[in-house]
Amino acid sequence: MYQLGVVYRNITRTDRATADALAPLGSATVHEAMGRVGLLKPCMRPIYAGAQISGTAVTVLLHPGDNWMMHVVAEQIQAGDIVVAALTAECSDGYFGDLLATSFQARGACGLVIDAGVRDVKTLTEMRFPVWSKAISSKGTIKATLGSVNIPVVCAGAYITPGDVIVADDDGVVCVPRAMAAQALQAARAREANEGAKREKLARGVLGLDMYNMREPLAAAGLKYID
Amino acid sequence: MYQLGVVYRNITRTDRATADALAPLGSATVHEAMGRVGLLKPCMRPIYAGAQISGTAVTVLLHPGDNWMMHVVAEQIQAGDIVVAALTAECSDGYFGDLLATSFQARGACGLVIDAGVRDVKTLTEMRFPVWSKAISSKGTIKATLGSVNIPVVCAGAYITPGDVIVADDDGVVCVPRAMAAQALQAARAREANEGAKREKLARGVLGLDMYNMREPLAAAGLKYID
Amino acid sequence: MYQLGVVYRNITRTDRATADALAPLGSATVHEAMGRVGLLKPCMRPIYAGAQISGTAVTVLLHPGDNWMMHVVAEQIQAGDIVVAALTAECSDGYFGDLLATSFQARGACGLVIDAGVRDVKTLTEMRFPVWSKAISSKGTIKATLGSVNIPVVCAGAYITPGDVIVADDDGVVCVPRAMAAQALQAARAREANEGAKREKLARGVLGLDMYNMREPLAAAGLKYID
Amino acid sequence: MYQLGVVYRNITRTDRATADALAPLGSATVHEAMGRVGLLKPCMRPIYAGAQISGTAVTVLLHPGDNWMMHVVAEQIQAGDIVVAALTAECSDGYFGDLLATSFQARGACGLVIDAGVRDVKTLTEMRFPVWSKAISSKGTIKATLGSVNIPVVCAGAYITPGDVIVADDDGVVCVPRAMAAQALQAARAREANEGAKREKLARGVLGLDMYNMREPLAAAGLKYID
Amino acid sequence: MYQLGVVYRNITRTDRATADALAPLGSATVHEAMGRVGLLKPCMRPIYAGAQISGTAVTVLLHPGDNWMMHVVAEQIQAGDIVVAALTAECSDGYFGDLLATSFQARGACGLVIDAGVRDVKTLTEMRFPVWSKAISSKGTIKATLGSVNIPVVCAGAYITPGDVIVADDDGVVCVPRAMAAQALQAARAREANEGAKREKLARGVLGLDMYNMREPLAAAGLKYID
Amino acid sequence: MYQLGVVYRNITRTDRATADALAPLGSATVHEAMGRVGLLKPCMRPIYAGAQISGTAVTVLLHPGDNWMMHVVAEQIQAGDIVVAALTAECSDGYFGDLLATSFQARGACGLVIDAGVRDVKTLTEMRFPVWSKAISSKGTIKATLGSVNIPVVCAGAYITPGDVIVADDDGVVCVPRAMAAQALQAARAREANEGAKREKLARGVLGLDMYNMREPLAAAGLKYID
Repeated sequence: MYQLGVVYRNITRTDRATADALAPLGSATVHEAMGRVGLLKPCMRPIYAGAQISGTAVTVLLHPGDNWMMHVVAEQIQAGDIVVAALTAECSDGYFGDLLATSFQARGACGLVIDAGVRDVKTLTEMRFPVWSKAISSKGTIKATLGSVNIPVVCAGAYITPGDVIVADDDGVVCVPRAMAAQALQAARAREANEGAKREKLARGVLGLDMYNMREPLAAAGLKYID
Repeated sequence: MYQLGVVYRNITRTDRATADALAPLGSATVHEAMGRVGLLKPCMRPIYAGAQISGTAVTVLLHPGDNWMMHVVAEQIQAGDIVVAALTAECSDGYFGDLLATSFQARGACGLVIDAGVRDVKTLTEMRFPVWSKAISSKGTIKATLGSVNIPVVCAGAYITPGDVIVADDDGVVCVPRAMAAQALQAARAREANEGAKREKLARGVLGLDMYNMREPLAAAGLKYID
Repeated sequence: MYQLGVVYRNITRTDRATADALAPLGSATVHEAMGRVGLLKPCMRPIYAGAQISGTAVTVLLHPGDNWMMHVVAEQIQAGDIVVAALTAECSDGYFGDLLATSFQARGACGLVIDAGVRDVKTLTEMRFPVWSKAISSKGTIKATLGSVNIPVVCAGAYITPGDVIVADDDGVVCVPRAMAAQALQAARAREANEGAKREKLARGVLGLDMYNMREPLAAAGLKYID
Repeated sequence: MYQLGVVYRNITRTDRATADALAPLGSATVHEAMGRVGLLKPCMRPIYAGAQISGTAVTVLLHPGDNWMMHVVAEQIQAGDIVVAALTAECSDGYFGDLLATSFQARGACGLVIDAGVRDVKTLTEMRFPVWSKAISSKGTIKATLGSVNIPVVCAGAYITPGDVIVADDDGVVCVPRAMAAQALQAARAREANEGAKREKLARGVLGLDMYNMREPLAAAGLKYID
Repeated sequence: MYQLGVVYRNITRTDRATADALAPLGSATVHEAMGRVGLLKPCMRPIYAGAQISGTAVTVLLHPGDNWMMHVVAEQIQAGDIVVAALTAECSDGYFGDLLATSFQARGACGLVIDAGVRDVKTLTEMRFPVWSKAISSKGTIKATLGSVNIPVVCAGAYITPGDVIVADDDGVVCVPRAMAAQALQAARAREANEGAKREKLARGVLGLDMYNMREPLAAAGLKYID
Repeated sequence: MYQLGVVYRNITRTDRATADALAPLGSATVHEAMGRVGLLKPCMRPIYAGAQISGTAVTVLLHPGDNWMMHVVAEQIQAGDIVVAALTAECSDGYFGDLLATSFQARGACGLVIDAGVRDVKTLTEMRFPVWSKAISSKGTIKATLGSVNIPVVCAGAYITPGDVIVADDDGVVCVPRAMAAQALQAARAREANEGAKREKLARGVLGLDMYNMREPLAAAGLKYID
């Protein structure tokens, strides 16, 4: 349940080194490393392919058709942040365009995750300001009602606390709680370290059936081969 | 982000009198009284019309296609509870049917809110065990993977902490955080007390334009009447 | 393209007798009689089963999350009208509840068609005030931005001019332009007059294949029976 | 892949006694008894609550916006059949109304399952002719292109061969292949026989955790209780 | 409501200079300049990124699964036109491919906006013939039923009159009525002229809060900063 | 209806030359050549633009949230195969990533068609391993329940038998049954041979109305031109 009309100026961010180190691991590996949790719904798609970022969440709660708080959150951005915009009800309007992107980028934001729509995607792409959204829409918004900044929000089905780490790439968006970030980074790195050897084996034609010792449990489960 | 494989046995429930008193006010009035927050997405629909309940949330986190934890949560139910079932990923399978409903009802639950599917809806209707779900499906589930019980969850876009109050009726489902329940009850009652007089006026043909003194602000906003 | 901030007070309604006479024919028959046009999208569903109405459209254009103009349109309602509410962008909020329904009913409206959400559906059902909507939602709305009343609107994919006839039942909603209403009524009655005899034949086991002389065109199209 | 323009007149139906005996068991139990397969997608919903039928499938393949073959399939209906209508592409038009229902009912059909829309649902409800569909729509259809009758079809994601048994109720629709029908009936009955005793135990407050001996496997999987 | 079976050969197009001048301003700016109206639903997406066009609408009304009228509209195309294809009911079939695109391009069309599906998107991309559609589908269509050409249509929720200007880019599609085109162009240019200076300020780190003087109204609305 | 827990090792594939020859013709032409059947639903989209493949289907049936059988199917892949993955219920999880792609590619697969989600799409794009899916999602899956390999499946609404030919490109995915492959190839080539001349004519400005002799049938259907 949301508190409205407040801006928390002091949030505890995950330390920058940890937050930044998660980007190259990617959303899928980080999500697996945390025990398969933390994902935003797959309707959240990047506006262009290839962006892969991580950063600390500053959050903003918006009302349908109203982007007033986007200007309020801009002031709270620090270098390395990712803005996470949640909605009080479903809306596909275009809350964010090239002017706000210019402002966010100038303040140090490395991206936006929004459970609504964006516009000016051609310019955002040229600016290399990545956005993950559930819609692209020219529809403009008004500035009439207060939401909040830096309160915990639910964005695309995930609970996100200001200062958590967001990892976003072509596969989607995952939220790593601040308290788990160091451990998630370690687990994700361990997971990835493993993958090189596996990939090489698989590339040589070794089967996962053998590499993961699956034949026995499959037989135990009753799998039958028929010639 | 979810903690997996845990069952919290001791949760602090909103006091029963407050939780029960919210039902007759209905989800819309309670939601308004809280400042227009707390709603689950409108895809959550009742399996039959006319049920109107409130109660304290016991939560369960489920994996796609796996209802194992529904049996675990059953043990944590107390009289007056509403079970709130969240998912780690989107799934429309039928997690819940007449046997589980019999068990939940025997333990004292007054309803279920589930961000997935249910089945045996004919029998559930006859039992008057109300369910709000996003799907109805005969699809069965397995029992293979641990989720959790009584952790905070995101269900249909809303953040719900065990012990919060759930208010559910034909209009949808709203979550009232425990800390706000007494105040929300008071505000909702005040709101409703007002409505009788308004309804009577409107029924006599008085216009909202006049009753709410809207003519001046509308004119100020530039509204033009054309004959 | 919409003109904003205007209320047309004088619209030319289809004559009441014609408008009222279309209800018993139903949306499917009227739609067929007009040459299979005029339907709103099938996402428009009645909030309760069994209502079957027709009436003259008074229209209102709303913004996402803002129901201010619903109070403005109330004043323009005359006996026999159906309010048609269109949106400038997609929104599922609950724009309309029992208070507005009391007002609309007092002014003589016989129903509401809205390309968004409604609430208080239990009370609306008890009041027998029928609504066709694309969502049911407790989500409240604000009163901040001007739309318009009695301009032509696009509602659920159909173009509706104030004064047109709306026919709505369990099958959906159809709009009959004022200029075509008399002719549509006649054609729909002719169509229905035909149906009694057809129904009787089909009930006796006569096949449509024979009653409609389809066997020859089917054979001409190449249909083959295989034993 | 579909063969177009053919009507198979002689199909081998599941024996009537078996087909009829599946109805009271319901779609969920039958689906479970077959090993959790055979379900149509949950978008298939009954037009009214409470119908619970089973019968042998006669199939028809339709094109978008064209219901010509509905008249062709009518002739192939025998007492105890359920018509299963599949589409070559997605369409929500109203392919079926009260006239066709009168014909189908006169020929002995006990219901319709259609991966598209229907209309005249008020009259169909009064006739007690149950339909499971993915849409309700007044939209009329033309008669221009040949489909087929009694070929195997994919309907709402399930593969259905003419003569298979269809079981449909408020939970959805399941297809039981002819070759498995006797065995499915037996397994479903066994499953149901079990349920009475279970229900009684659960109603007395016995937990599924104990009745199904789940505590040990849950502990083995690592479930932790926290006080 | 649609008139069927007619082709209007003489339509009044917005003058070419105005129509062409809107393209570089883009759909979002033009939509804002008109007062935030005129947009088609955001499900209308370009088949490839980067196209940005404007032109005068020639319209065509199609039936589900039938593209006959696409050949009829081809003859009515003049240089600088954009074809706008509306449907009488929802359909995702592929109405348009490389042959029709060759024909349209030869006649001078600069793009297609269709509330249905298209195919041959690889070739269309190579031809640089831009299409905005709600689906991509190989599904073929028949040629059996008359629609109309150059009547006013509802396409993706917007009302479009032949001769109106269509502006389409990566953000979506907007319709500018002929009568408003000159004024919309002027307003959009004024809006854009403003943006350069704003962008520069924002790029230097000036906040929208200050540039737009929002601090006072936000405080007046009750916004609280918490340290 | 699906048989669970079986792997068919010997399937009869369409001969390689025929299967390979269908790729350059594309899904739309092949679908038309078969009489407008065989398409998977248009929700199946390529993870990157430009891939155009054909190959023989090896099939795998998966449960929601469980990708165990993906490792089982890997062993059954031969050079020139396309893996077709069907689900027993709707699921958008990421069943497939770069490790499995490495394995599939090493075994000779030229692509994957899956009625669920995939992940690692950036790496898959770099590997040029094309996938058609209905979702992209980082969500991981478990390995707990047996499905089957090389049984006939329903994938995205199409019935696919192991050994059938799959043709997939930017327009979608079509299945050509083995028994029809040679004939479909011949018909598709004939169709394409025709297109060059048509394209040239259309490029010169000849109208489809004249090239296809449509003017007479359109007039016969009642088309009216209005000046």
